[in-house]
Amino acid sequence: MSTRLNHAFHLRRRPQGAPVKDDLELVEEPVPEPGPGQALVRTCYLSVDPTTRIWMTDYRSYLPPSPLNEVMRGVGVGQVVKSRREDLPEGTLVLGWPGWQEYCLTDEASLLPLQFPFLPLPDPLPAPLPAFLGVLGHTGLTAYLGIDVGRPRAGETVVVSAAAGAVGSVAGQLAKVRGARVVGISGGPEKCHHVIEDLGFDACVDRYAADWREQLDAATPDGVDVDFENVGGEIMDHVLMRINLRARVVLCGMIGIYDHLGVDTPGQRAIIQLLMRRASMHGFLVLDHLDRFDEATAHLAGLLATGRLHYKETILDGLDQAPEALAQILNGTKVGKMVVRVAEPIPR
Amino acid sequence: MSTRLNHAFHLRRRPQGAPVKDDLELVEEPVPEPGPGQALVRTCYLSVDPTTRIWMTDYRSYLPPSPLNEVMRGVGVGQVVKSRREDLPEGTLVLGWPGWQEYCLTDEASLLPLQFPFLPLPDPLPAPLPAFLGVLGHTGLTAYLGIDVGRPRAGETVVVSAAAGAVGSVAGQLAKVRGARVVGISGGPEKCHHVIEDLGFDACVDRYAADWREQLDAATPDGVDVDFENVGGEIMDHVLMRINLRARVVLCGMIGIYDHLGVDTPGQRAIIQLLMRRASMHGFLVLDHLDRFDEATAHLAGLLATGRLHYKETILDGLDQAPEALAQILNGTKVGKMVVRVAEPIPR
Repeated sequence: MSTRLNHAFHLRRRPQGAPVKDDLELVEEPVPEPGPGQALVRTCYLSVDPTTRIWMTDYRSYLPPSPLNEVMRGVGVGQVVKSRREDLPEGTLVLGWPGWQEYCLTDEASLLPLQFPFLPLPDPLPAPLPAFLGVLGHTGLTAYLGIDVGRPRAGETVVVSAAAGAVGSVAGQLAKVRGARVVGISGGPEKCHHVIEDLGFDACVDRYAADWREQLDAATPDGVDVDFENVGGEIMDHVLMRINLRARVVLCGMIGIYDHLGVDTPGQRAIIQLLMRRASMHGFLVLDHLDRFDEATAHLAGLLATGRLHYKETILDGLDQAPEALAQILNGTKVGKMVVRVAEPIPR
Repeated sequence: MSTRLNHAFHLRRRPQGAPVKDDLELVEEPVPEPGPGQALVRTCYLSVDPTTRIWMTDYRSYLPPSPLNEVMRGVGVGQVVKSRREDLPEGTLVLGWPGWQEYCLTDEASLLPLQFPFLPLPDPLPAPLPAFLGVLGHTGLTAYLGIDVGRPRAGETVVVSAAAGAVGSVAGQLAKVRGARVVGISGGPEKCHHVIEDLGFDACVDRYAADWREQLDAATPDGVDVDFENVGGEIMDHVLMRINLRARVVLCGMIGIYDHLGVDTPGQRAIIQLLMRRASMHGFLVLDHLDRFDEATAHLAGLLATGRLHYKETILDGLDQAPEALAQILNGTKVGKMVVRVAEPIPR
């Protein structure tokens, strides 16, 4: 048995409202030894996403809940540090589900019914490692798929909530490439400035401003054709009150209610506007479309290379920062893709 | 000028909550004389529908509000009693928008931007006159269109709320013809009995029963593939909690909130299930598809003739009963299509 120690966050309780310290416990365990057909992966970067909060609940979701008293579920990139698996030699960079821990074993079997398998990343890497959790990873793919669902056309108006977030920022830029007028919604003047100046949105509504309704009205003088919805709640309702005939609501996320799923969940009051405007709402999920990963990444990498796509990352240092990373997502203070750096890979 | 009198309901106020007596006023006016190109129509039957309540509000809707201090908007069938219009000789039975009154003028111009024009009905009539406001009229067409949107397949489970109503009753039977398992939701044991025994639904949940949630769970052991939604509110939310992967929510109506549109509108708390199950919700409106009236009516008449489609009507006598008809729709006490008989046509 190895004498090295693995640090891991175990989920102890399902949070009531905003997660608190005692919902997770950081435990020390021996690093496991890979058996035949297994490889030991050291976590390099962990992705923390709005959906992480869903996994903590036992609300009816798209995956089983992250089990209590086990390692908290999480997507990440890592490096094979010891291998008894021919397809993953030592030093290989991999993408998969390490969970919130420093070391994990991977084998050819899936850990979950629906998942990224542990996939080797391209060599050499076309972008820094954290990008494979963001713009060239599952959040980039999510934005690409959602725009494909909403199909904004040139001249149409697209509203994107959580516009400075990992998904919203990419979705809005993809809508711009299609020739749409793109209006972001974000929290505070700094993020709104970023959305307009760095990401190139046509306008951005500050949802913390007292006059956010008037800002949204002024920014969408011709109504709304596509709502790329990441937040839910009263802002979504106000957008619904402005949708045009045959508008499409792309239901990507509702981070505004994740702390209240199943218990006093706030309701959407303007759903009937879908009827009034003969509009539609579409739920979609990146896990259904992993077969389009290559397609999406090719497009996104091309846009990056030609300066048509910009992104930011917020990187916190150390596994112990994972709960803080989640808190910053839920309280809306971070910008761009949230990543926790657990360990830098060893150069190959 | 005619010495005959026209009785008409004028909309005096926009109701707050359930409509009350003083929201409408029954006034007496002289019957108008048709000018060149006009015909005088005597109202025979008036349709009163859930959507009538929407027209009373100034909430953002699919039509402008029914104007204050004018005749209350309404669809009906009538008979030409005096004509200076060659295509509508005296005695012709017509379908259109007479409003809540005994006599109206029609000419070749439309009264509203979106409407049934005053169309002559077939001669001889293939069904009694009230059917052209129901199963062979706009509510039958609505059911037909909504099932076309939801596309239930054999073996799938369809839930229909307001199952004993004009639209729900037909929608459920159309889903049965497609081979689906059809579960109705209705208010009270008598209406549930009617839904199962007369309409042939597989099950019916009594929404007034204390155990309606358990009834719905038991009636949908394989989940829900299509929600044909006429009501909204907590029952819709419970249905959403049971939808299957790629379910379709056909948003036909939300009668449960029409008394509260725009003011303390109750919210839908389970919309996120569309994301969890990669499902979709579709608003649609009969007025967009009047070009399919013949197609729908041909199918529905055929099903009627072969005993595959059954319907009920609730007929109240006298124009003065129109407010009571609306009240019975909103409080859920009527069964089937609600019609107000204003005057029988003179046999041709």
